[in-house]
Amino acid sequence: MSVRVGILGATGAVGQRFIQLLDGHPTFELAALTASEDSAGRPYREAAKWRVDSPIPVDVAEMTVRETTPEAVPDDVDLLFSSLPSSVAVDVEEDFARDGYVISSNSSNDRLAEDVPLTIPEINPDHLDLIEVQRDERGWDGALVKNPNCSTITMIPPLAALDRFGIERVDVSTLQAVSGAGYSGVTSMEIIDNAIPHIGGEEDKMETESRKLLGDFDGAAVTWHDMDVAASCNRIPTLDGHLENAFVDLADDPDVDEVADAMREFPGVDLPSAPNQLIHVFDDPERPQPRMDRMRGQGMQICVGGVQSTDHGVKFNCLAHNTVRGAAGASVLNGELLVENGYL
Amino acid sequence: MSVRVGILGATGAVGQRFIQLLDGHPTFELAALTASEDSAGRPYREAAKWRVDSPIPVDVAEMTVRETTPEAVPDDVDLLFSSLPSSVAVDVEEDFARDGYVISSNSSNDRLAEDVPLTIPEINPDHLDLIEVQRDERGWDGALVKNPNCSTITMIPPLAALDRFGIERVDVSTLQAVSGAGYSGVTSMEIIDNAIPHIGGEEDKMETESRKLLGDFDGAAVTWHDMDVAASCNRIPTLDGHLENAFVDLADDPDVDEVADAMREFPGVDLPSAPNQLIHVFDDPERPQPRMDRMRGQGMQICVGGVQSTDHGVKFNCLAHNTVRGAAGASVLNGELLVENGYL
Amino acid sequence: MSVRVGILGATGAVGQRFIQLLDGHPTFELAALTASEDSAGRPYREAAKWRVDSPIPVDVAEMTVRETTPEAVPDDVDLLFSSLPSSVAVDVEEDFARDGYVISSNSSNDRLAEDVPLTIPEINPDHLDLIEVQRDERGWDGALVKNPNCSTITMIPPLAALDRFGIERVDVSTLQAVSGAGYSGVTSMEIIDNAIPHIGGEEDKMETESRKLLGDFDGAAVTWHDMDVAASCNRIPTLDGHLENAFVDLADDPDVDEVADAMREFPGVDLPSAPNQLIHVFDDPERPQPRMDRMRGQGMQICVGGVQSTDHGVKFNCLAHNTVRGAAGASVLNGELLVENGYL
Amino acid sequence: MSVRVGILGATGAVGQRFIQLLDGHPTFELAALTASEDSAGRPYREAAKWRVDSPIPVDVAEMTVRETTPEAVPDDVDLLFSSLPSSVAVDVEEDFARDGYVISSNSSNDRLAEDVPLTIPEINPDHLDLIEVQRDERGWDGALVKNPNCSTITMIPPLAALDRFGIERVDVSTLQAVSGAGYSGVTSMEIIDNAIPHIGGEEDKMETESRKLLGDFDGAAVTWHDMDVAASCNRIPTLDGHLENAFVDLADDPDVDEVADAMREFPGVDLPSAPNQLIHVFDDPERPQPRMDRMRGQGMQICVGGVQSTDHGVKFNCLAHNTVRGAAGASVLNGELLVENGYL
Repeated sequence: MSVRVGILGATGAVGQRFIQLLDGHPTFELAALTASEDSAGRPYREAAKWRVDSPIPVDVAEMTVRETTPEAVPDDVDLLFSSLPSSVAVDVEEDFARDGYVISSNSSNDRLAEDVPLTIPEINPDHLDLIEVQRDERGWDGALVKNPNCSTITMIPPLAALDRFGIERVDVSTLQAVSGAGYSGVTSMEIIDNAIPHIGGEEDKMETESRKLLGDFDGAAVTWHDMDVAASCNRIPTLDGHLENAFVDLADDPDVDEVADAMREFPGVDLPSAPNQLIHVFDDPERPQPRMDRMRGQGMQICVGGVQSTDHGVKFNCLAHNTVRGAAGASVLNGELLVENGYL
Repeated sequence: MSVRVGILGATGAVGQRFIQLLDGHPTFELAALTASEDSAGRPYREAAKWRVDSPIPVDVAEMTVRETTPEAVPDDVDLLFSSLPSSVAVDVEEDFARDGYVISSNSSNDRLAEDVPLTIPEINPDHLDLIEVQRDERGWDGALVKNPNCSTITMIPPLAALDRFGIERVDVSTLQAVSGAGYSGVTSMEIIDNAIPHIGGEEDKMETESRKLLGDFDGAAVTWHDMDVAASCNRIPTLDGHLENAFVDLADDPDVDEVADAMREFPGVDLPSAPNQLIHVFDDPERPQPRMDRMRGQGMQICVGGVQSTDHGVKFNCLAHNTVRGAAGASVLNGELLVENGYL
Repeated sequence: MSVRVGILGATGAVGQRFIQLLDGHPTFELAALTASEDSAGRPYREAAKWRVDSPIPVDVAEMTVRETTPEAVPDDVDLLFSSLPSSVAVDVEEDFARDGYVISSNSSNDRLAEDVPLTIPEINPDHLDLIEVQRDERGWDGALVKNPNCSTITMIPPLAALDRFGIERVDVSTLQAVSGAGYSGVTSMEIIDNAIPHIGGEEDKMETESRKLLGDFDGAAVTWHDMDVAASCNRIPTLDGHLENAFVDLADDPDVDEVADAMREFPGVDLPSAPNQLIHVFDDPERPQPRMDRMRGQGMQICVGGVQSTDHGVKFNCLAHNTVRGAAGASVLNGELLVENGYL
Repeated sequence: MSVRVGILGATGAVGQRFIQLLDGHPTFELAALTASEDSAGRPYREAAKWRVDSPIPVDVAEMTVRETTPEAVPDDVDLLFSSLPSSVAVDVEEDFARDGYVISSNSSNDRLAEDVPLTIPEINPDHLDLIEVQRDERGWDGALVKNPNCSTITMIPPLAALDRFGIERVDVSTLQAVSGAGYSGVTSMEIIDNAIPHIGGEEDKMETESRKLLGDFDGAAVTWHDMDVAASCNRIPTLDGHLENAFVDLADDPDVDEVADAMREFPGVDLPSAPNQLIHVFDDPERPQPRMDRMRGQGMQICVGGVQSTDHGVKFNCLAHNTVRGAAGASVLNGELLVENGYL
């Protein structure tokens, strides 16, 4: 089975990752690329300043970039991946969904909307059925599915594994790579020999998305998890890979081995882009490290290390590739889940 | 009044900072430099590979380096600053103290010993009188005083300011500069485009030293503060300046302005190396940043930013220059307190 | 004597350096700041995102930013420093000069114009009298003086010192800091763990400006030096300080000591912002290094190292602070020369 | 055909690259690993601190490390790759060659010896027959073959392509990655926000090895190329990939297109580790860049850009991966040439 897919916002940093990840994909056939008006009508190789470290796939290089409107995208495209700026996406994604397209979006708008599924296939695949609610309420033929923010997704798999011990509270601090801000988001003069202890809106995303992701879906609505989450987000001079320090209060009192085992044994899913093992746990306390570990599992595995007991539960470090597992890869995986669950 | 001082371990990174800070000091006259056997007998400019960004003071360049033994140091030197490796310092510092020298040490050994004062002049100057207990128990004419680890000292002033609201718990995550590991401690291949989520022994230091520093001294012993402290320590590609994210649970429920005011108004001390204001609080959430703010107050001020309420108290970010306020400057300031309090 | 000065383009990176360098200047009193329309009418502290590592001078912080037009600048301002984008400067500077202002400009437009002096006070102060030609030809009361590009100025003092041996040819390769492109000129994703072997227009500037600077002025026109210059320009992950490798063919055959002596003994000038010694020559082949040496002589000294003979002459490395000696400091020094030579 | 190979000095940075490159090699079967006495007798995964970004091959992880002596290596190993420190290699390599082993060495000793072939398979494969001279003179059954230094090898392919126009002179400046100094060779405090304009011995290597490589072998001896080469070598904050700026004087006067074509069309070789095309020439003047281009051709291709005419010939930039094409990959390729030419 082959599904024809398109990318909304194909020239940006995440758009380029989509192209890289879709190259050779077993199910998805890339059939449409859209971008802003300036780029529309031009061959992709001209419209995009390609910065990924593998060459542009030859056929993609010559594809003509389209405008980001439902009219400009062929009808035989069924699934759209979106990495539009959220200020643009907020209207455009609705236009496409109304027009019958299914959209797997990485944009931050609407992630907390009550009828929009916020999904990680290994964590809360059942939330996908919020699509039924969404279609009822909005009268759409299409659908809009979101993946969480890159800093949220990094910590969610280990937290999901820990929830069997009753998570009551999370304090989390992030060391985030510059690619998370897009190609021009962080200037070299801001970050060389420096760190910035603030990323606008990021703390809120971690504090809210995490509770929706780990919440319960009863077929009609998601009840958020009642844990307290406090986040502090920092930018550091690293290219790719978000590293996070989590302090987690637990109702139970597991020992370190039980915690590590719960993570290692947390089940994955059988989808093309999913890693064999969702969480890799290091015994070496110096790991995970962004440059050494971000590409484990083709950038889709979550790495954990430094698991230790505290007075109130456990602390640990976790890492994920922010533009693969934390952005384009997350949307592609959600796209695979949509296929698997019959939404396409 | 002039006090003749020496530096034990004068050729290393912290030793060089001592020389820089003592150059032109109003009270301290540098009269002796010691180092390992290899360096003894050589002029300082040859023995040390000078790496500080101001030139070696002319008179220091020609001083002859001595062995690190009480016999090799002139008797008219009264105060010694120590930045020896702790494995060396553990014996050598005792030899000097027994021989009558007063030692203000940055080395990590003995910081938690019951009769060794661990002191920050603005925070717990009264702890200095542990020297009386120390002299009684050890029969020393000299004395041994310690300053805390660089990562501890960064967060202690804001915590001391917050303790009026009753600190119950601290979760803290650090983003530490490479200079904290000494000149050769972190290779370029380890840290470029990377971060390391572990610094050996650092978490323990933060979790224990902080409780001793904020403890009560009743004239005989220090009762540690009963707060729970959990730390996660990370190395990042920054030259100088440790940045930290703290999550603090409080018994009271102050608002953000009360918290910021408590920090801004926390009193300093009137000593030559102390900053006019101990804690600078930024309103701009993007500050403090290591490269922009580490040299505030000649590297002796603590910077705070991002003060926000949480479900359990407050979170904030703090920054200090790790080899000035966090090492050599801390020892010099303790030396000034020793003079002020009549121990010299 | 006090001269009232203004800054055209005061909010940018070089504009901020001007403010820093003029703070406490013995002759120049800062009386006007201009910027683009968006900033006009606002207090400087609001209009500029201040990024220099010393605080905004208190009185400057509250100055109102003006439009960049002759009408908006008070008549009692005599000297203007310009760091406008060259596309803007090309018209605006002429407007001001026509209106009677003397302009010491760092902008790259008009540097090669036949009647515009391109000056480094220690190298070719006599070229300043091109102002007479300029005034004759253009009918201006004011005047326009230029300093060279940052990459040019780094190599010119050692080349000037070598010219006693007859320079025939220069091959030069640069390692340039990111600040040379302005605050947002180089993104972090472009330069971390990377280098870029091209800086638009930079090679031409080095190849032409150098020949004009070392040319002869006969009272009417400058005859360019006839040396061949070939440059390759690279951007590297360094904040400040341009390092350059020069290979110079000489007519004579001096030994290394003669070359080093010629550089060390090259005369400076007696102007407030000039360093005591123009060129510092290191014996240590590992110097100069950008971070260690860029601030020598308050950022105004040229550092040289690695002087060695080759089959055709000599090779050496040189370094200067690109936004001080290479930009704002160069213009201020030219301003001081204008005062000294009676043009104000 | 399968050849059993060993690695002398298998635990270091280049040793690890050898293991990575030999994993899955079509001809070479890794059968022995040697290291210093401390490591001998231990499993490789314990003896080496693995830092390459792909995991240790499973079978290699459990191999027992041997001492670096002919006695400790099995007799059925025929070919040895050496990345020993040159001070060790100078004796040890002779011991092995005398004992009958053929050694393809990356160590810098003996590269200029008259009877030791210094070889790049695409450039001077005929020099390999110096082995006959070597065996005659030294009475060895084995043989010792060298590849050039990483900074030399980067510029040699484009120079070889240009030599049809008659190279008279080369001035070259390098921007070298920290991995060239080994894992601990450059500390983070030396290189963050900095550059170092000196690498001990590197300039000599470039100036001499290049002339031997492009020299003529008449069956008895190599006559060095008579071009003048002057090099300046710099270390910059880049992990992998040496970038170089070359200024080349030519006897003929080709235009830029002829130069680029000569490079693009320079023939490769049909060996397993050789890239399809030896030299990739970019039209984009901003390329090659270390991080973007070092892995082209699995790290074995040479990239060139910025080709421009000068008054005396041409200038261009070139790039190669210093630990693949510039070290381990160079030795493996020479090993493949040894097999091809019947020396094994």
